[in-house]
Formats: sequence, C-alpha cells, structure tokens
Amino acid sequence: MSPLTHDDLVVVDGLQINNWDRKVLEELRAGGVTGVNATCAVWEGPAETTRAIADWYQLARDNDDVVVLAETAEQIRAAKAAGKVAVLLGFQNTSPFGDDYRLVEVFHRLGVRVAQLTYNIQNLVGGACYDANDSGLSAFGGFIVAEMNRVGMLIDLSHVGNRTSRDAIDASAGPVAITHSNPTWFFDHPRNKPDEVIRALADRGGVIGCCLYPNVLGGELTTRAQFCSMIARLVDEIGPDHVAIGSDCTRNWSQDFVAWLRNGRWRPAAANPVEPEWPAWPQWFNGPCDFPAVTEGLLSAGLDEATVRKVLGENWLRLFSQVFATKEAR
Amino acid sequence: MSPLTHDDLVVVDGLQINNWDRKVLEELRAGGVTGVNATCAVWEGPAETTRAIADWYQLARDNDDVVVLAETAEQIRAAKAAGKVAVLLGFQNTSPFGDDYRLVEVFHRLGVRVAQLTYNIQNLVGGACYDANDSGLSAFGGFIVAEMNRVGMLIDLSHVGNRTSRDAIDASAGPVAITHSNPTWFFDHPRNKPDEVIRALADRGGVIGCCLYPNVLGGELTTRAQFCSMIARLVDEIGPDHVAIGSDCTRNWSQDFVAWLRNGRWRPAAANPVEPEWPAWPQWFNGPCDFPAVTEGLLSAGLDEATVRKVLGENWLRLFSQVFATKEAR
Repeated sequence: MSPLTHDDLVVVDGLQINNWDRKVLEELRAGGVTGVNATCAVWEGPAETTRAIADWYQLARDNDDVVVLAETAEQIRAAKAAGKVAVLLGFQNTSPFGDDYRLVEVFHRLGVRVAQLTYNIQNLVGGACYDANDSGLSAFGGFIVAEMNRVGMLIDLSHVGNRTSRDAIDASAGPVAITHSNPTWFFDHPRNKPDEVIRALADRGGVIGCCLYPNVLGGELTTRAQFCSMIARLVDEIGPDHVAIGSDCTRNWSQDFVAWLRNGRWRPAAANPVEPEWPAWPQWFNGPCDFPAVTEGLLSAGLDEATVRKVLGENWLRLFSQVFATKEAR
Repeated sequence: MSPLTHDDLVVVDGLQINNWDRKVLEELRAGGVTGVNATCAVWEGPAETTRAIADWYQLARDNDDVVVLAETAEQIRAAKAAGKVAVLLGFQNTSPFGDDYRLVEVFHRLGVRVAQLTYNIQNLVGGACYDANDSGLSAFGGFIVAEMNRVGMLIDLSHVGNRTSRDAIDASAGPVAITHSNPTWFFDHPRNKPDEVIRALADRGGVIGCCLYPNVLGGELTTRAQFCSMIARLVDEIGPDHVAIGSDCTRNWSQDFVAWLRNGRWRPAAANPVEPEWPAWPQWFNGPCDFPAVTEGLLSAGLDEATVRKVLGENWLRLFSQVFATKEAR
C-alpha cells in the first residue's frame, strides 16, 4: 500500500447530480471529496434555474460547516484546508440561457462555472448523444461558446453529440471538458466517447472525467480493476494531464427524478420506451464515500503517485484555473 | 450667483425610468448627474428581469466611456472622478422576486440595489398607492423586508400605500427611501406622501427624493421657485439630511410604454379609464440635462451650499453607504 491518503489528496469529482442535503454533503466529506461540479439544471429554463441557485445559496448557508460554494480553483483548495466540501455550480444543459447568449454572463455572476452544451437531445446550441442526426454546433451555439469563453465558464461535452463536440472543441478559444463519460473502446454506449473526440479534447488541453454511472460503465458487475485499468490505458494514450474522474453520483433521489432526467417535458413519460429506473451501482462504489477505493484501485493499476494526484483532482483544478481566469469576466 | 457648479457637486438622482441608450446617458452627463437609480423592472417577473439586467450589462459594456454600473456609494464617487454616469440597478416592484424571498439575494448578486415594495396596485408584499384598501405589509412582505435588510438592498416606498409604508418603516432594521414622491401638502395626489409617512421615514434616517414628474408635481405650470420652496420647507420640517431629488425622468419612450406602466398585464388597456399619455414637463426641467437649473433654484430659495450638496446627492450617498454595507451580504 502507498502512503497516499485522502488526508493529503485534493479529490475533485467532475460531476455529481445528487439530491443535495446535509447527509449527502457529509457523504462527500467522508469520502475525502474536496470539490465537485454539482448539477443544478438539466431541463430547467432561466427562471427555474435562478430558483435552483437560490436553493443552493440557502443550502450552503444552512450548512456552512460542511460546504462552501466555490467559483475558483483556489477556493476549492481553501475548502480542503478548512475541512469542507467545495461545490461548483454547474448545468447539464444550456436551457438556462434560453434563447439569449447574454444569460451566460448572468449565470456566471450567480456562481455557475460549468455548462454542458446539450443534454441527450438537440437544443438551440447543437446536437446531443441520443440524436439520430447531430446538427453540429449551431450559429447560436457559436455565440454561446464565445460568451462562455469570454466570462470564464467551462464547456462540458459529456451528453453532447460527437459532431457538435468536435465543432465545440474547434470553436472554443480555450480547453473544454467531458466531465462524465468513458471511452467507447471501454464500453460502447452513445454517452461514451470515440477516440477522435477524446484526442481532440486532449490536444487542446481539455480533461475527460471517467464515469462510474453504471449505464456507461458497463453495469454493476464491472470491477474496480477494469475501471482503473481503463484509466491507466487512457493515461497512456492521451497523457496524465487529461484524465480525471466524474462519478455522476445520483444519491438521494426518488424514482420521479430519473423519469424527469429521461423525459423532461419533451415527451410524455409513457412515450419513453424504457421504464425509468435507477441502475444498481457496483459494490465497490456505492457513492461519494467510496472514493478511497478508487484511489486504492488506481495505485493497484500501477499509476504512480503523481499521476494519481492528477487524475483524482489536480487535472480538474488546473483546467478550472485556466478556464475561470479571464480578464473579460466581471 | 453662488460659486457652486456641477463640476464639484456630486449629483445623484433617486429615480429615472428612461428608455436607456447612449443619447440618454449623454443627457445625464451633460446635466452633471453622477449617479442614478435606474429602473429595470416594473411589472416583470424573475425571468424577464434577469434579461433586463443582461441588457444593462451589454449597454454598460458597449458604452463604457460614458457609464458604469455601480453597487456602492464609493463607486458613484469614483464615477464622478472618471467623468462617467454611475447607474444603480433598481426595481419599482417586487415582482422580480416572484413568490420566493430568496430571489432578493439573487438579484442583489446581479447588482440590484433598490427595490420598491409595490407598484400602483397590491401584490404579494403589500398594498400600493392606488389601492382602495391598503392591506399593509403581508407576512411574505415581512420576509422580503428582512431579506432586503440582510443582503443590503434599499427599500423604496414611492408607489407604496401609506399603511404598507408605515409597516415597512417599522419592520425594516435600517433606514428606507421614498425615491420619487412629494409631500401631499405640496400637491395632493395618491402618489404623494402625507406628513406622518415622511416624518416616520426621516425619524429612522430615511430620505425622500422630491419628484419632478408632472403628475405628482402639480403639472407643467408648477414653477421652479415653487418646487424649490417646497424643498426648503421640507428641509425645515425634517432636517437637511432627509431630503433629496428623484426626478422620475422618462426620456426616450414611445407611447406604448406609458400604457405598459399603467396597465401591465393586470387589465386590458381598454379597461384603463384614462388614455395613457406622457405628460408635458415644465419648461425649466425637460430632462436630466436641466439639473443645473434645479441647483440654481435651490440656492435662490435660500438653501445654504452645504444643504444644497446634501439635497442634490450627498443624502442619497449617505443612505446608500449605510444600507448597502452589510456583513451578511455576499
């Protein structure tokens, strides 16, 4: 065993979409998770999202011994020192911007630091992972990307279509992220990413967060060794600076929420060909408190300590520092 | 004539509701107006207001040689030194907070520093100046007042009913404002304020901005001497620290907008018993560029230079400093 423990590791999770409360925050702290991109919008429009952010302000205020809302990499490091979980507010869709690119600045000002361009299906910005035909980045999407670059908001391509992903990587002035997906060579799934997207992302300095969500992991029976070997191979392929973790943890939700994720308001629940259900998670990773098992697994897979530090947090922090620091931002 | 000129006066206008563009901003600058509470919502809900603020961010960015968005009294003084107009974003209604007191913090974070509790008719917060029965401050209104106190947002009572105004003055932990109204003893009108409201406001350290809007001024024929004598008498009655100006300038709007102000969405335009029209302004005050005439009039009315400085700007700046500075605010 290595001397590497969560006491001196800065662990950052590229995405969690829990139903946040004190108990969930304590689970993150128990797992030694210092920072997390917390989804606060998937289908919501501008007004609903503004309320979701108000919810976060209140939750953070009511639990300020456990959590702090962060807007910079430095604030995440400071949270580690203070023994708190640092939450970056993030979107899994550009629906909060409505049809108005200027709302990017508004939500940036409210603390949002990450936004995924599309969620599952085509929107005003571009095409998504489940579209039969990915439109690529739209003209409006070009303005969204430019404005996210300007204010310093990280572009996320996890649920985005491959064509739109390539367009966005090309259009973006800075590096972008895939916060929670795996390579298709590991598990072939529309939510996972082909080589060309992952390599283009890495070439521009971006980071991919390998994902523990069972549906994109290959199911609950996928072993920790398999997951960690995938990360080791990805590090070999694109280098140690571009690989991270994005667990996609979904703690504390009832059944309703998975139906909302699947169907939003864009189709009647009955039109969903699959009964929405939460998948079973692997025994070795049941939630944020099992992060130490991932650390152990990465070391067992032969990654050196420096690389483990990068994969578990330092790569996200570097990317955040680079993207969030912009002279144009308010 | 006094040596007092607009070169060394910090002039702050308690409220303008212009259709803002570069030309209007240049009119303010020509009139030596350093700071202004600019209305960006009257009937709008949360989402529409968020867009109105995005409009302001863009207008300010596109005209940053003339204007700066300010959130503190210090920034208004700095704008004076830089030869720019400092705009405080303000609401004439609490409709932007919807039914959620937590949106106060959200809009504060976006830069809003003033909100009037009600606009003309009753809302969730309380009663307004044209209500047959003023409900007083509601229970929800109590939370709004407390939250505005907490984050440091100035409470405005100009269009608020008298009972609700008294309740709000009592409920507020800090001083409040009437940004644009006159005493009823000067002109008896539902939008103007009886003695007991003005005295209660002043007793708690608040400020009333005397208003040039013709409908509450007594019409276009009211003279400059009459207006300035009113201010002199008010200074005698409540002291020099509680009287200011709130012009209610309405530059650059078409006819449509006055109908929107009058009718919002709460009644069909045809149900308005009065044809909505912009009133004629007095010859001596046609807009923000005529502010020097007010200065001259106040000196002619016998106010000393120190009092003129207070009335024209320093009283607003003191109130802003006091209300906006709160340890609780983000």
